[in-house]
Amino acid sequence: MPSGSFPNLDVRMRGFSERSLVADALQYVDDHTCPLSPEVIPIDQAHGRVLADNALAPIDVPSFRRSAMDGYALKGAETAGAGAYHPLTFAIVGESLPGRAFEGALDAGQAVRIMTGAPVPDGADAVVPAEYATESEGQVEITTSVAPQKHVAPVGEDVTAGSTVALAGRRLRPQDIGLLASVGCETLPVVRQPQVKVIATGNEIVSPGSPRGAHQIYDANTTMLKALVERDGGITSDCQTIVDDRQQIRDALRVPGGDLIIMTGGSSVGAEDHAPTVLAELGTLAIHGIAMRPSSPTGLGRIDSRPVFLLPGNPVSCLCAYDFFAGRTIRRLGGRGVDWPYATLAATVGRKIVSAVGRVDYVRVRLVDESVEPLAVSGASILSSTTRADGFVIVPAACEGFAPGSEVTVYRYEPVA
Amino acid sequence: MPSGSFPNLDVRMRGFSERSLVADALQYVDDHTCPLSPEVIPIDQAHGRVLADNALAPIDVPSFRRSAMDGYALKGAETAGAGAYHPLTFAIVGESLPGRAFEGALDAGQAVRIMTGAPVPDGADAVVPAEYATESEGQVEITTSVAPQKHVAPVGEDVTAGSTVALAGRRLRPQDIGLLASVGCETLPVVRQPQVKVIATGNEIVSPGSPRGAHQIYDANTTMLKALVERDGGITSDCQTIVDDRQQIRDALRVPGGDLIIMTGGSSVGAEDHAPTVLAELGTLAIHGIAMRPSSPTGLGRIDSRPVFLLPGNPVSCLCAYDFFAGRTIRRLGGRGVDWPYATLAATVGRKIVSAVGRVDYVRVRLVDESVEPLAVSGASILSSTTRADGFVIVPAACEGFAPGSEVTVYRYEPVA
Repeated sequence: MPSGSFPNLDVRMRGFSERSLVADALQYVDDHTCPLSPEVIPIDQAHGRVLADNALAPIDVPSFRRSAMDGYALKGAETAGAGAYHPLTFAIVGESLPGRAFEGALDAGQAVRIMTGAPVPDGADAVVPAEYATESEGQVEITTSVAPQKHVAPVGEDVTAGSTVALAGRRLRPQDIGLLASVGCETLPVVRQPQVKVIATGNEIVSPGSPRGAHQIYDANTTMLKALVERDGGITSDCQTIVDDRQQIRDALRVPGGDLIIMTGGSSVGAEDHAPTVLAELGTLAIHGIAMRPSSPTGLGRIDSRPVFLLPGNPVSCLCAYDFFAGRTIRRLGGRGVDWPYATLAATVGRKIVSAVGRVDYVRVRLVDESVEPLAVSGASILSSTTRADGFVIVPAACEGFAPGSEVTVYRYEPVA
Repeated sequence: MPSGSFPNLDVRMRGFSERSLVADALQYVDDHTCPLSPEVIPIDQAHGRVLADNALAPIDVPSFRRSAMDGYALKGAETAGAGAYHPLTFAIVGESLPGRAFEGALDAGQAVRIMTGAPVPDGADAVVPAEYATESEGQVEITTSVAPQKHVAPVGEDVTAGSTVALAGRRLRPQDIGLLASVGCETLPVVRQPQVKVIATGNEIVSPGSPRGAHQIYDANTTMLKALVERDGGITSDCQTIVDDRQQIRDALRVPGGDLIIMTGGSSVGAEDHAPTVLAELGTLAIHGIAMRPSSPTGLGRIDSRPVFLLPGNPVSCLCAYDFFAGRTIRRLGGRGVDWPYATLAATVGRKIVSAVGRVDYVRVRLVDESVEPLAVSGASILSSTTRADGFVIVPAACEGFAPGSEVTVYRYEPVA
């Protein structure tokens, strides 16, 4: 019987006598995570990043009265009564182009040829669209009336100087970036992206492309985790593959750097599962063993201020535990919300989903027409179950499953954008 | 009255006499787009990319009989009758660890200590979990019975050699990447990312951070378009800002390279709107003027094999026309589907949405409780309408709007992941 330095924590070859509740594990990770400090980056790299401070507009947009149409700027009141059978004539005294204003002011009976986006000259207060105008020999015939202000965008119509263009915490979308550019932002303060260290442990794993022994397997978790970290806005700063050796695990966990550490494999109760006791030695093993399926042999803790996630080596468990705990933490560190990063769908259970009270289940499902069916083959080692499935359903701890006809929320694996 | 080289196409200062239908414009872009050629990339860069060929598994996963538990491998039939009050004893003849198999074969009454993921030795056909076993002095007492095959994953349980792991056209998710890694893929053939040239035209525009004249505006479209292109899986290979000058526009459009060109500004019927006629000279201006609001002054065509999009300079029109036509083309070139890259929500109209028969409307809306309201201020130049809105509703050409109580699909601006 192997023994560890912390016999009260050492569950190796004895099994978990007690498992933490998922809710308590989530509380633990949330209690120890807050958004990282801001960094300032060029605006054209800010798509998808989270704004760290409220962004105020230093200028009005537009900062001048702007034509909303191609046509003729004039005094709206002077167009009263104009129509197809009653054209009115104005003298063209100049032209206002975008970026090249007409510098004078209009008198009665005058018009200025104007393009969309060009400044409306002093003395004009409306624009007649080109469709209702015929120009010849320095004059223009107008066949419609326009009220004052018509087709003239006032100063600050889009954004007023001093107003808040985007709130801190906003995950920047293309149009947010556009609006921030329109008020002149060249750089933006955004929440720093979490740097994640990924350590895969196991004598049996080899990297894809490397020679593989008869009893070895290719490491699925490292590349999957890198993709998950990327999806959640983190950066995998470092990847390492090590064998099931207490000293190697200790050495890997002791390397400083990174905002968060994910270790896969060796997190359970086997003789070679050193990670939990090593973490307890080097820092804090706050939670080990969680009442959920899959992913029960998950450990959560910290080294210094860095959250550490000990995820099971079985790839489905790894994915599930990542999504429940590590992904949530990465999203929170990066300033994103705690919502699952999957589109949801309300659907009706077609074939019953079985769980047990006291345990949270992550059930891979298929959508058959509008109804939900659990996959028949879905062990924690069957990663193909997550590629065949359309998504998953979470069965809460208080619930022993869902009968046919129940309404459930399906988290869809298919990405939206 | 300005004149162009193609008087029959030149709508400058006359307005569009006829607009193309959105459906026809979509048909045109779809007819001239197919996925780009494949390229081979490292698997750890493949997240979110589109698989170009079916991926077949060269190996079984697992490729050996694998224990699904930490415990003891033995012959299941020999555990019959074991229980807490009736433990059965087996002689431990060795250990099987992940990557370090027990090389012998089991005889009757023997067991091998085994860890999750380790090869099940010859002669064993089941695993008793550690929780039901007590080991001492070379023996183990078993307090549960296990049927043959229990906790033993057969060869190929996850993936069988020769089977298709992922189909061509799959947008690769983290678990797809993991599964492909598990069969040993080091690289993957994926559809090449479209290279997009973005050209912003206008005397009035200056880049954020540059000195701005009183009648100039900061260019919102270039940074917004770069973000949109990124969202849709393209790469902005080149950005250029030029003035409203026929020769400069011609020079910019004539530069070879890129898979697709987006030009903003100068696409309408103003005297300075050179882009459509220049495109007609250099290639094909297939569509100019589309029956939609906003974005009516949109032009679509080609130079050589490259699709060219002339998008309006008004930022909301630019966003909308991008999403309808350019984004769709970028997604198709990159092997993605034509679906809008927004999560959708079915909702009920709270305040009526007004459109006109024959025209497609892109209406920015807010979600108030579960009901949808159009934004009151929503001109094509008011980019802040797209940052205040929760999303948009499309009013089809056949429809003059939606009355309160109608069920509509809301495309949500909020990104999912």
